Amino acid sequence: MNRIITIGRTFGSGGREIARRLAQSLSIAYYDQEIVKELISRSDMADEYIRHVEEKRPLPLLPITTARTFSLSTHVTVEQNLKLYNEESSIIREFAEKGDGVFVGRCADYVLASMKPVRLFVYAAMDSCIARCRLKGNDIEEISDTELRKKIENVDKTRSRYYRFYTGQTWSDKANYDIMINTSGIKDLSLLISGLSAMIDSCFSTD
Amino acid sequence: MNRIITIGRTFGSGGREIARRLAQSLSIAYYDQEIVKELISRSDMADEYIRHVEEKRPLPLLPITTARTFSLSTHVTVEQNLKLYNEESSIIREFAEKGDGVFVGRCADYVLASMKPVRLFVYAAMDSCIARCRLKGNDIEEISDTELRKKIENVDKTRSRYYRFYTGQTWSDKANYDIMINTSGIKDLSLLISGLSAMIDSCFSTD
Repeated sequence: MNRIITIGRTFGSGGREIARRLAQSLSIAYYDQEIVKELISRSDMADEYIRHVEEKRPLPLLPITTARTFSLSTHVTVEQNLKLYNEESSIIREFAEKGDGVFVGRCADYVLASMKPVRLFVYAAMDSCIARCRLKGNDIEEISDTELRKKIENVDKTRSRYYRFYTGQTWSDKANYDIMINTSGIKDLSLLISGLSAMIDSCFSTD
Repeated sequence: MNRIITIGRTFGSGGREIARRLAQSLSIAYYDQEIVKELISRSDMADEYIRHVEEKRPLPLLPITTARTFSLSTHVTVEQNLKLYNEESSIIREFAEKGDGVFVGRCADYVLASMKPVRLFVYAAMDSCIARCRLKGNDIEEISDTELRKKIENVDKTRSRYYRFYTGQTWSDKANYDIMINTSGIKDLSLLISGLSAMIDSCFSTD
C-alpha cells in the first residue's frame, strides 16, 4: 500500500512548510495547490470562485444538519460546493493511488482513511503564528496584531467548520491524529524534518 | 541550561516505556518511580500512603476552589497531600538542576516551566490501551474489557484532575505540549525513539 501522509494545520503554524520539506526529504509527491489546480482544470466554474470556496463548508449561514439534508436542487450554491468537495475528494484519492504522497488539509486524513495514512497536525501558539505571518506575509505591515490575530482565528474557524461539516469529527482533536507538533518552540527545522521522517517510518515500517 | 524533557501520558498508552527508552537513547537520567522513592525517603508518612495519594489531587470530594482556599490547619489530609505535592515538586526541581533528564508525569511540565522543557504527551485509542494492558499486566486475565476500560478511564480522570488542581491547566490540551504522540499506530518503537530524539533536539539545538 502507498505511504500516505496527511497534514492538518492551523494558520500561521508553518504546517505547509513542514509538509513541503517532509515530501522533499522523503522524495515523495506533495499535494496542496496541486489539488486546487486539478479541481479548476476539471470544473467549468470560475477559478476565483473555486479558490474562494475551497476548504470552506458549503453555506456558512446554514446549520450543518440543515445544509446536509437540504433539497439541493433548489440551492445551487450548496449543490455546487458539495459537488466541488466530492470532486476534490476524488482527485485526492486518485493522487493517493498513484503513489506515496504528502497531502495538506482538505480532510485528506478522512478521505484517505482506508489507505491508513499517517496523520499529522501542526499548530502553534498565537504569538508564534503572528510572528510567522509577519515574516512570510506581503503587505501586512499596516495590519495591527489585533487584526492579524482575528484573521488567524477566522481562518482556523473556517477550517474547523469545514472539517466538521464533511467528516463529522472535531478538527485538531488528538484522537484523529498520529503525531501533533507545536512549532512554537522549534529552533532547527531540518532536524525536525529528519526526526519526523523517522517517526513517520515507525508507523509504516512493518506494513 | 539543562535539557529537560517532560512526558505526560494516558494510562496504557506506553508513555512510560517511551520515556525510559528515550532517556536511554539520549543517555540522560530518567525520573519516574525515582521521584516517589526520594519522596518516601524524605517523609515520615507510610510508604503505602504516599504511593496511594501520589499523582492524585488532595481531596477528591472537595471542589477544587474549596480545597484550595480551605483552612488547612483543620484539614489534615488536604494539608498532608499539599505538603507531599510541594515536596515532590522540590525533588523534581532538584533532579532537573543536577543535569539533563526525562521526567514522567507529576505536572513536571508545569513545575519545570522556567527551565523550558520539551513537553511530550503520549496517548492512544482505548482499544490499543486495553491491548497494551493485557500484554503487560499481571493478574488481569479475569478482568473483562468493560472493567479494564473503566479502570483506564478512572486512572486518566485522576491524572486529569490532579493536573488541573495543581496547574490550573487542562491535561492533554495540545497548547501545553510540544509534541503529542498517538501510539496506536506505532509499529517500530526503536525507529520512533530515534526520530523523537531528533525532533526533541530540534527544540533545543540553538539554545
